[in-house]
Amino acid sequence: MADGRTKEVERKKTDIPEDVFKRMFKSALEARKNAYAPYSHYRVGAALLTDGGKIYTGCNVENASYSVTNCAERTAFFSAVAAGEKRFSAIVIAGSPEGELTQLAWPCGVCRQVMREFCEPEHFWVFAAKSERDYEARLLKELLPDSFGPDNLI
Amino acid sequence: MADGRTKEVERKKTDIPEDVFKRMFKSALEARKNAYAPYSHYRVGAALLTDGGKIYTGCNVENASYSVTNCAERTAFFSAVAAGEKRFSAIVIAGSPEGELTQLAWPCGVCRQVMREFCEPEHFWVFAAKSERDYEARLLKELLPDSFGPDNLI
Amino acid sequence: MADGRTKEVERKKTDIPEDVFKRMFKSALEARKNAYAPYSHYRVGAALLTDGGKIYTGCNVENASYSVTNCAERTAFFSAVAAGEKRFSAIVIAGSPEGELTQLAWPCGVCRQVMREFCEPEHFWVFAAKSERDYEARLLKELLPDSFGPDNLI
Amino acid sequence: MADGRTKEVERKKTDIPEDVFKRMFKSALEARKNAYAPYSHYRVGAALLTDGGKIYTGCNVENASYSVTNCAERTAFFSAVAAGEKRFSAIVIAGSPEGELTQLAWPCGVCRQVMREFCEPEHFWVFAAKSERDYEARLLKELLPDSFGPDNLI
Repeated sequence: MADGRTKEVERKKTDIPEDVFKRMFKSALEARKNAYAPYSHYRVGAALLTDGGKIYTGCNVENASYSVTNCAERTAFFSAVAAGEKRFSAIVIAGSPEGELTQLAWPCGVCRQVMREFCEPEHFWVFAAKSERDYEARLLKELLPDSFGPDNLI
Repeated sequence: MADGRTKEVERKKTDIPEDVFKRMFKSALEARKNAYAPYSHYRVGAALLTDGGKIYTGCNVENASYSVTNCAERTAFFSAVAAGEKRFSAIVIAGSPEGELTQLAWPCGVCRQVMREFCEPEHFWVFAAKSERDYEARLLKELLPDSFGPDNLI
Repeated sequence: MADGRTKEVERKKTDIPEDVFKRMFKSALEARKNAYAPYSHYRVGAALLTDGGKIYTGCNVENASYSVTNCAERTAFFSAVAAGEKRFSAIVIAGSPEGELTQLAWPCGVCRQVMREFCEPEHFWVFAAKSERDYEARLLKELLPDSFGPDNLI
Repeated sequence: MADGRTKEVERKKTDIPEDVFKRMFKSALEARKNAYAPYSHYRVGAALLTDGGKIYTGCNVENASYSVTNCAERTAFFSAVAAGEKRFSAIVIAGSPEGELTQLAWPCGVCRQVMREFCEPEHFWVFAAKSERDYEARLLKELLPDSFGPDNLI
């Protein structure tokens, strides 16, 4: 995502309007401030967009028993579901080691699996962003192909 | 918790005022309506009280890959932490198989571990409730004695 | 994977010799018998091949608190690591609802993330198999592209 | 566990013969050597005793996505279940930050929940050990009272 032209392609591709993306990114950054990451010092914020246009946010919440850690993306999903939401169109992730955003942080496998439960793989967009201008986007089906999901359990 | 007298003891013991408990229980019931439990059909709602008197709620959110499931208690904690909260005084849990509340649902080990990260074991109260009048309460230290926690990692 | 010709392509592609694959599949089936799946009734066995040619197996192990469930693939990895193994070349997965194998069971996101920690995405092969003759294979990089991994934590 | 007399009481209490405990502790130490803990540098080994007298071991296996980490105790349980075991009498845990054992490492909530699925709370013994002579023991029911378990799901 080095130059403006590539970004233009990226943005058009996703069908998420630029102003919505910007609002989501800002929300993700804001949520990142509350990250509880005393063990990894890796701080993540996420902003989840519902089909109805509402934004739910989350941060990572770590634990001395590492297994019990929750990622920012899942925090956003669980909060949204608890608020009665079930249909989502996109998520923006802002994550990096403490301080400025220096990486595009893609979701871990656990978070992709949570997305798989609620989102349509061909329509749900995942953005990893370093700034309002420096980001990349993938469809869920690109991030979790050949997935295990509700269909397997019949 | 068979009779009124025992309940009286229980309530006084916790130092959570009756009206606050009732408000929490109502919130937990409300949150339970959003439980996403297509696999277990076990539905749980939880209401978490901050030291500042705010209530955050959560429901269980299941997944076709069972490991990825999140409990109601943790949903409430993660939402609260994402909103900037770090200090908590009590949680009320309302869980049972689909339909009316027929059980006192105590938290699983994972949720106790999340509580351990943020709450003081000698002061944080956990309520399992079937109704406004039928409930029991334990201190976190009673539910997770000899715990593994942040101190272990030094 | 409808016909023999496609399968031929599939097998050659992976560089896992046919007899090794067959041995792995047999081990996965055997492990599947020990699956503890009283909640989902979905039973999975897995066989993991080390670079040194040893096979470690695993089955899924469920829990009343669904989050605590472990998949067959992870059981195999954890057993292998506990035995001192760190380098792996392939895994065969045999999973379906109780009874005969009727599905190609691809790994959930959590298991892909465990693979990501120990395996080279461009070289580690994941097989989903219904029988010795009916299976498909993917490289880990195909199943977990744009992954979050050890590099992110610096 | 400061003095010999207390330890004597402790040992008699558990009904696990001294030589069996010593064998388990040695196995746990051995397993600890394979701990994969590049993130926490906290290394744990565990040895699980079946009712039939066999010992299964495990170590902790961490992951860049912290949630995906597995503890030593669970590794031992999952390996044992995959080998066809279902009945257990005791586990010995040897954990501490890198180097010598300096702590009694009690199991996290997740591991207690796995124990709850397979073990009888009134009969299963959990040992946290620093050496053959310096350890403590608890019954599972002491470590996870008022538990959520299979009974809740009916």
